[in-house]
Amino acid sequence: MKVGFIGLGNMGSAMARNLIKAGHALTVYNHTPSRAEEFRLLGVTVARTPSEAAAGAEAIITMVANDHAVEDVIFGSGKAIETLPAGAVHISMSTISVALSHRLVVAHRDKKQNFLAAPVFGRPDAAAAAKLFIAAAGPADQIARCQVLFDAMGQKTFIVGDEAPAANVVKVTANFLITTVIESLGEAFALIRKSGVNPEKFLEVLTGSLFAAPIFRTYGGMIAADNFEPVGFSMALGMKDNRLVLAAAEDAAVPLPMASLIRDRMLTATAQGMGEADWAAIARISFQEAGL
Amino acid sequence: MKVGFIGLGNMGSAMARNLIKAGHALTVYNHTPSRAEEFRLLGVTVARTPSEAAAGAEAIITMVANDHAVEDVIFGSGKAIETLPAGAVHISMSTISVALSHRLVVAHRDKKQNFLAAPVFGRPDAAAAAKLFIAAAGPADQIARCQVLFDAMGQKTFIVGDEAPAANVVKVTANFLITTVIESLGEAFALIRKSGVNPEKFLEVLTGSLFAAPIFRTYGGMIAADNFEPVGFSMALGMKDNRLVLAAAEDAAVPLPMASLIRDRMLTATAQGMGEADWAAIARISFQEAGL
Amino acid sequence: MKVGFIGLGNMGSAMARNLIKAGHALTVYNHTPSRAEEFRLLGVTVARTPSEAAAGAEAIITMVANDHAVEDVIFGSGKAIETLPAGAVHISMSTISVALSHRLVVAHRDKKQNFLAAPVFGRPDAAAAAKLFIAAAGPADQIARCQVLFDAMGQKTFIVGDEAPAANVVKVTANFLITTVIESLGEAFALIRKSGVNPEKFLEVLTGSLFAAPIFRTYGGMIAADNFEPVGFSMALGMKDNRLVLAAAEDAAVPLPMASLIRDRMLTATAQGMGEADWAAIARISFQEAGL
Amino acid sequence: MKVGFIGLGNMGSAMARNLIKAGHALTVYNHTPSRAEEFRLLGVTVARTPSEAAAGAEAIITMVANDHAVEDVIFGSGKAIETLPAGAVHISMSTISVALSHRLVVAHRDKKQNFLAAPVFGRPDAAAAAKLFIAAAGPADQIARCQVLFDAMGQKTFIVGDEAPAANVVKVTANFLITTVIESLGEAFALIRKSGVNPEKFLEVLTGSLFAAPIFRTYGGMIAADNFEPVGFSMALGMKDNRLVLAAAEDAAVPLPMASLIRDRMLTATAQGMGEADWAAIARISFQEAGL
Repeated sequence: MKVGFIGLGNMGSAMARNLIKAGHALTVYNHTPSRAEEFRLLGVTVARTPSEAAAGAEAIITMVANDHAVEDVIFGSGKAIETLPAGAVHISMSTISVALSHRLVVAHRDKKQNFLAAPVFGRPDAAAAAKLFIAAAGPADQIARCQVLFDAMGQKTFIVGDEAPAANVVKVTANFLITTVIESLGEAFALIRKSGVNPEKFLEVLTGSLFAAPIFRTYGGMIAADNFEPVGFSMALGMKDNRLVLAAAEDAAVPLPMASLIRDRMLTATAQGMGEADWAAIARISFQEAGL
Repeated sequence: MKVGFIGLGNMGSAMARNLIKAGHALTVYNHTPSRAEEFRLLGVTVARTPSEAAAGAEAIITMVANDHAVEDVIFGSGKAIETLPAGAVHISMSTISVALSHRLVVAHRDKKQNFLAAPVFGRPDAAAAAKLFIAAAGPADQIARCQVLFDAMGQKTFIVGDEAPAANVVKVTANFLITTVIESLGEAFALIRKSGVNPEKFLEVLTGSLFAAPIFRTYGGMIAADNFEPVGFSMALGMKDNRLVLAAAEDAAVPLPMASLIRDRMLTATAQGMGEADWAAIARISFQEAGL
Repeated sequence: MKVGFIGLGNMGSAMARNLIKAGHALTVYNHTPSRAEEFRLLGVTVARTPSEAAAGAEAIITMVANDHAVEDVIFGSGKAIETLPAGAVHISMSTISVALSHRLVVAHRDKKQNFLAAPVFGRPDAAAAAKLFIAAAGPADQIARCQVLFDAMGQKTFIVGDEAPAANVVKVTANFLITTVIESLGEAFALIRKSGVNPEKFLEVLTGSLFAAPIFRTYGGMIAADNFEPVGFSMALGMKDNRLVLAAAEDAAVPLPMASLIRDRMLTATAQGMGEADWAAIARISFQEAGL
Repeated sequence: MKVGFIGLGNMGSAMARNLIKAGHALTVYNHTPSRAEEFRLLGVTVARTPSEAAAGAEAIITMVANDHAVEDVIFGSGKAIETLPAGAVHISMSTISVALSHRLVVAHRDKKQNFLAAPVFGRPDAAAAAKLFIAAAGPADQIARCQVLFDAMGQKTFIVGDEAPAANVVKVTANFLITTVIESLGEAFALIRKSGVNPEKFLEVLTGSLFAAPIFRTYGGMIAADNFEPVGFSMALGMKDNRLVLAAAEDAAVPLPMASLIRDRMLTATAQGMGEADWAAIARISFQEAGL
């Protein structure tokens, strides 16, 4: 397919590379042009503006930092929405607010364009290995048409509904669940350590029995070792995601006490200089509180 | 081995049966004698008192309802501690407080008996299938000696330390983690449902990606379906376990905000007539709060 | 003084009336013109635009619904900031965000105008009786100059600092404290009632001893009687104020667990149809949770 | 009246002295005999056992550290309940559990004795000045009969019901409200200070307007100054009171999220070496979290 790919950060550049490898014709765009250079060397067309990336494309993919960045490349004169052909599709793959997803549905419909939300689960190494999990939502025919793209980037695509924002709800809610696992492990290991029990033994029990999931192995390992380097996903990004789930829940009038608790933990971590640490470092707040 | 087995509830009777199957010589005791009848029919010796069950045994196993029940069969004149031979071992396999475990260490040492804590993970069906996970702690030689018993009852034994109470800390902390998973899923599905997303689709994403663990499948299935029948583990027992982890944490001066939240949820559920429901029904509180 | 008064809601019209009574020359403006009619009948000049109200004034006072409303009357071409004379002062008396207050400091400084924040404490009846409490902040000379206005509207002016946003911090923090009193009383009366104790007797003990403050009498009375009519301050406005304190605290990296709890309570109340009830009705959530 | 007074700590000795001053005939008892010596010098009879203090008394008053201490002086052979004459009354004035109060009702009824709960509000200086507030509950005739005693010790007696435990519910719930005020002020002053606002100015606004109550002046003063010396009421005693309200609420199936939060704060404070600090020092946890 002829694809305009917007956003070449750690995740985006790995995903774009996999699309190229699968034979798709990409035009790439990045806000900071230098990050597009490696693609130019590969012979890929580098657009100077979002509108150039969208012109003539069958699909554009946005994989950018936040809501503001999506608005910045899509909306307004000279932006992608102006040049994306009628009938083409915008696939939003980064983590954005449910509210923005609703706006995008309407904005693209007004231009007779299509819109899919297809946020991904996985860190940069999974993106590089084309092992992402993709939660896609939107019109079934559009998802079917884009499946070839998803297959090039991920190991599995979950179709969660025919209205795009459903995928964004799924994404922010699943991210919230990740944070609850982190916080619960922080508290649990505070008790384990202060009780004089070997944290590695405890982790072995967990991941060897009921808690045998990647999420417990990954974060349990970091927390048991009290080692949060290297930074995989920063506290600042974690706060952004926490804001997204709290905003979605506020709009839907759903209280999330655990998300509130995690917000307070992340604020505490930030106030104590951990703003750039891995978000799993909120476990350190539990350790401190326990006097460890 | 010659084993006195005390406590023939759903868990205990399944475990005792597996020990018999493995060729061990059991004397069983249960507070309510009728529950021991089936064992008499199997040709097993039925003791009339805990002291009778312990007399001449190489090991006694307690698998009873709570701290009080353990104290009731072990301590005092005419109780098991009086007749258990010096050198024999008491294996406490039910979920008891860390504090009681400390008392048992001392009490048995005074009698030159040994003490192991070896609480189990798994529901009655796992007990029947000899598929329990066992977290054992205490002197290494005693664990080695009892391994043959553990092998007859469980699929895996984790050795978590050489001081018995470590296993009890592990058990109450792991149970706490189960409740955090339940609560987090309750909140998450409240948001999912109120946002109009199909809960089964969301569960599929979770268990098909980062959250591929038995704990998410089991409780996620109940919560996605908003169906908490049949009752596997009651709210009342859940509150008991919540009290155990809060007590252990209080003794160690470790705050556990999530355990506090879950305590409040369970009290709310109890106040609303769900005291005998499955403990996963605390998810219903999240649903109610969201106006579902 | 020559005053442009912007915002004639329940609070603003009472305050404007007291300024007129004290002999000040007012030009009033309200977004919905009909509410200004009663002032026209009093012989007061009614402006058709915010800029008209500010033209030639020594001071303008804004007493409007929220941040958006302040931005709407102050900023932009044809708005008050364009016509307010250099050297004149804008006194922001409604509850606005700390962030907007910072923006106003800069915007007015750029126009060589002055800015004071002087939010008020008190309900409409206190406004009518000129019994408001005013927390003022900004340059000392400007506060001194405006004291005659404050005296006409309030019973006491607290000068809290020489940077205007300080008064907004004080206001949103004090409002947060009001909500903590409401929530704590909701929980307390849930326990009192469910324990079979007469709630009026309990209230008598509180307000007759350590808790002898207006805040406990006002809200304690409503909660003890489980009667939240008539609505003094709505849940929706309460949520707005809760958002303001959480935003100020997030900007300052200060976790406020009680504000998080109250946010969840207000969301629950909203989800259950209490969005237009008095904000003290969050006590009902405590009652419901207790099964009352 | 002929009164056996049991418990001569800071509070009890001041109260006993006021009873003597009012002309009542006291026999005093204290667990540590040395504290009774000053009373011997005043010519007061000093009992060697609780039963001696109760023998022949019209009333006994207990003002001791906790439930255990009450049980220790009242129940069992050779204890006060054995010698207190039929028709006499036991007035429990210290802070005890609601559950123990229920037990005392029954135990005294079985002996044809009477029982009143009359816990007090106030610190030792208020006790010395006979300025305590007393919340009394129990049979009306017994309260009437003991009013002369209450008048000698307090400035006001609130009669909260005709079943003694009602007064204990009132006491533990009011103490809970004190802790909510402390915690809310801790959070509020964290925000105030980190926003660069003068804490004394903020306190002035509070206590000069809606929050004009002793509770805000006392604790607001300590927290604004970040000075918790001298210790008026220790964290350890605060935790005891927190346990009492949580236990009463658990028995009544009433969740108290704020009490749970305060429990976690006190545990954190304890873990950080503040176990003997004034309980208001939980505000320091808010300060620390904010990075102050």
